[in-house]
Amino acid sequence: MDDSAAVDVDFGESGLVPAVAQDAENGEVLMLAYVSPEALARTRETGRAHYYSRSRDELWEKGATSGHVQSVAEVRVDCDADTLLYLVDQEGGACHTGHRSCFYRTIEGETVGERVFDPDTVYE
Amino acid sequence: MDDSAAVDVDFGESGLVPAVAQDAENGEVLMLAYVSPEALARTRETGRAHYYSRSRDELWEKGATSGHVQSVAEVRVDCDADTLLYLVDQEGGACHTGHRSCFYRTIEGETVGERVFDPDTVYE
Repeated sequence: MDDSAAVDVDFGESGLVPAVAQDAENGEVLMLAYVSPEALARTRETGRAHYYSRSRDELWEKGATSGHVQSVAEVRVDCDADTLLYLVDQEGGACHTGHRSCFYRTIEGETVGERVFDPDTVYE
Repeated sequence: MDDSAAVDVDFGESGLVPAVAQDAENGEVLMLAYVSPEALARTRETGRAHYYSRSRDELWEKGATSGHVQSVAEVRVDCDADTLLYLVDQEGGACHTGHRSCFYRTIEGETVGERVFDPDTVYE
């Protein structure tokens, strides 16, 4: 991955932009999280998805605890340069509930996503 | 679409949640915009994607001006119930630049997305 970013990302007042992680193979939308300039730089340097946790107020590497890392094949930017799209190869599942995708249910409450691991065996 | 939302969406302090629009047919991620409770209710009532513009501070129906409407096949909610995924049938292109998707370029500035209309002929 070329580390020179030609597109100047607009991190706005919050200093964060939302990033959508999408399975590079089958197109499944896996999760949305927030990214700081440092998280983006680390993602591009390492090829592994990094985000910024607003609740813990810290940079985190996806899968550092669970092993469910995301190898980033490509980073895309939207027209306004204030949202990112990470095209990833997801190890295991993206969701802490054990589902492949965080978007595993409809707004009516129906579960439509696949469960791929038991969170009790992954997170202590 | 059943209008009773079993999942209680967490709109947080801002009163808005990000919503990712994904092509229901081919899985392409088309755009990200923000949704208020009213925008979500209108989306579910009408089956057409509605969002809330933070810059204009108003509810808007996608495609109301351009004709590039989004018919919503399904609304999904993520694990934390603070992000939505709209699975849509996109008329024309989602992006005001004329591209099918707002994520038409990589962070290195390479255009990878398809241009499907000329914005000069759509927006006055």
